[in-house]
Amino acid sequence: MYNIQKKEYIERIAKFQKNLKEAGLDAALVHGNEADFANVRYLSEYWPTFEAAAVFVPAHGKPVLIIGPESENYAKGRSVIPDICKMIEYREFAEPNYPGIPVAHYPDVIKKSGCGPIRKLGIVSYAITPLPVLDSLKRELPQVELIKADDTFLPLRYVKTETELTCMRRAFEISEIAVEAILNEMKPGMTEFQVIGIAQREIYKNGGEYEGHALYCFSGPRTNNAICRPINKVIRKNEIIQLNIGARVGGYSSSVGLPVWFGKLPANQKQLVEFGLKAHIKTMELMAAGKPAAAVVKEYEDWVKAEGFAKFMLYGPCHSIGMMEVERPWMESTSAFDLEENMTFQVDTFFTDKDFGLRWEDGVIVKAGGVEKMSGKFMKVIEL
Amino acid sequence: MYNIQKKEYIERIAKFQKNLKEAGLDAALVHGNEADFANVRYLSEYWPTFEAAAVFVPAHGKPVLIIGPESENYAKGRSVIPDICKMIEYREFAEPNYPGIPVAHYPDVIKKSGCGPIRKLGIVSYAITPLPVLDSLKRELPQVELIKADDTFLPLRYVKTETELTCMRRAFEISEIAVEAILNEMKPGMTEFQVIGIAQREIYKNGGEYEGHALYCFSGPRTNNAICRPINKVIRKNEIIQLNIGARVGGYSSSVGLPVWFGKLPANQKQLVEFGLKAHIKTMELMAAGKPAAAVVKEYEDWVKAEGFAKFMLYGPCHSIGMMEVERPWMESTSAFDLEENMTFQVDTFFTDKDFGLRWEDGVIVKAGGVEKMSGKFMKVIEL
Repeated sequence: MYNIQKKEYIERIAKFQKNLKEAGLDAALVHGNEADFANVRYLSEYWPTFEAAAVFVPAHGKPVLIIGPESENYAKGRSVIPDICKMIEYREFAEPNYPGIPVAHYPDVIKKSGCGPIRKLGIVSYAITPLPVLDSLKRELPQVELIKADDTFLPLRYVKTETELTCMRRAFEISEIAVEAILNEMKPGMTEFQVIGIAQREIYKNGGEYEGHALYCFSGPRTNNAICRPINKVIRKNEIIQLNIGARVGGYSSSVGLPVWFGKLPANQKQLVEFGLKAHIKTMELMAAGKPAAAVVKEYEDWVKAEGFAKFMLYGPCHSIGMMEVERPWMESTSAFDLEENMTFQVDTFFTDKDFGLRWEDGVIVKAGGVEKMSGKFMKVIEL
Repeated sequence: MYNIQKKEYIERIAKFQKNLKEAGLDAALVHGNEADFANVRYLSEYWPTFEAAAVFVPAHGKPVLIIGPESENYAKGRSVIPDICKMIEYREFAEPNYPGIPVAHYPDVIKKSGCGPIRKLGIVSYAITPLPVLDSLKRELPQVELIKADDTFLPLRYVKTETELTCMRRAFEISEIAVEAILNEMKPGMTEFQVIGIAQREIYKNGGEYEGHALYCFSGPRTNNAICRPINKVIRKNEIIQLNIGARVGGYSSSVGLPVWFGKLPANQKQLVEFGLKAHIKTMELMAAGKPAAAVVKEYEDWVKAEGFAKFMLYGPCHSIGMMEVERPWMESTSAFDLEENMTFQVDTFFTDKDFGLRWEDGVIVKAGGVEKMSGKFMKVIEL
């Protein structure tokens, strides 16, 4: 139920091949690793661990999944792409030699794809493609021109299908279940790590396949971090506790974020919490299919300024969410795209002062005339 | 208690700078990301999330931590290296533009380090250094020669200090607590995901900072995978269930692996489980400070052959463990190093037949005359 069907993978590959032809590329190499598996999994359902992976997609011919030397059985059982090559470039970071395990090279991959000689190869996932891949491409395919080609691929992921939305709605449901468990069980004296343990338990108990992102529980002055990791700090009364909890289902991520506290907050902190929630709702009201993303950002920022809270705003108000909790496109003042029906965004409302911060996060699906909330149960000020 | 102290980081940097001088390098750039954070954290304690990071270490001068545009507060609170630069090359994979956030370039980093002009730059973490970093280095430092330099750095991590061993012993203790909880609570009818949830709960409850690796629970024919991910499959009676559960403490990883089952196994499966445990113990008996790693591998493989089980052996028998669950050096027939006191290895005994497999995993510290086990409580055949 929460899986993408083979038919949809085949459609994705066909659309990507059409884009490659239009871009004048003979093929593309799409990289993935443990931390950003999305592009590889989008094409193959294969989700690498320990090792890296890639999908070679020719404009004409068959796609080939490329894996590391140890993942053959795993890939055969999971990949919807039946043609698979093992290559040393995709081995673990520890760089074992694997004496006795035969590996392929890029010319073997091209041959397996049946696409004939290539001259222009697109590099997709450019930001994470590592140097050993580049070295081998240059050595083994010296005549081939390498071209950054994320734009031929990433837009395929922007507008979600009904199957994708089903996975995402379930991921957000599980995130809300995990937040509920935290609100029921968290007590002053627990560490940030222990709070994360409650969420992890609920994510997997309810069918999540993994965390949707490295989970957040920060407390006290540490809440002023936009990006952070939980630590062994003990949670106390009368300080903000920031929760950002996300499950992943069928390859699709989610996150629900809210500030909570035990006891009483200083007045300035409570005021910013309340204003943050107002701003969070404001963003959702500004969004609808057909609207330019940059207009949402401008209207939001103008509104925050008019309300007198601009100095507490770091960035915002939205980034796309899908397979990764943060993915393209971001909504920024520089954005050049319009919102489309069934794009999915994480409304991510972060305000910070010197010694504290807070973040409201919920997922929405863009619809004609507005948004459908994928989460929203905890869009309220909660004093524990 | 389970943290590396600032003094130790300073010693690490000094040793690395000595190696750089000996190698004739003016500086090194050490990359890290969410999936392989180890080299960056080893030098700085900074553990990136969402964004990537690097440490620029000059042979003469001060190290500089390089982070993405969003991690400034987090890095200031966590890094033991006080000099920090934000660079766009280390942003999230989604490649936001961050209008209005000022970023640095490599010449700024060099200037901050106070090392003067450089001609030879070592690239450490070569296997994960991504293309945008290379592009910017070439554009911004066109006169600088780039040289793969993992060998100037990675050997620093081979022999562990007492502080590192304290973190590792605790990580293995927590892994055993998590395995114990699984053995008490797992029931036929649960999914693989749900079993992982039990382990995650215990890891964080007991002070683990994260999983030590993507946790394994595979059952039935899926146990023949050397590398795999848990899925929504229901666990049944009379099939092998493979558990590999690892906690991370203070940046140091662990893993405890064992096959278990409910009911009865087919005789051939039980025989291989029992032989696997014998082989697992055999490896530990073969290890001691001063012994060539390749000799351990040869003696182990000869023994497995003599026992008649060579056809079930994929590779083995050990890889190093430390910050990453799998790190250099591996013990392979091609290995060219000798075991040294306080090297830490994961004894990783994997045997597989067509439709099943099993893996025993425990951590050991190399000592004079033998090994100290970091785990071993579950080195026994367990029928549930």
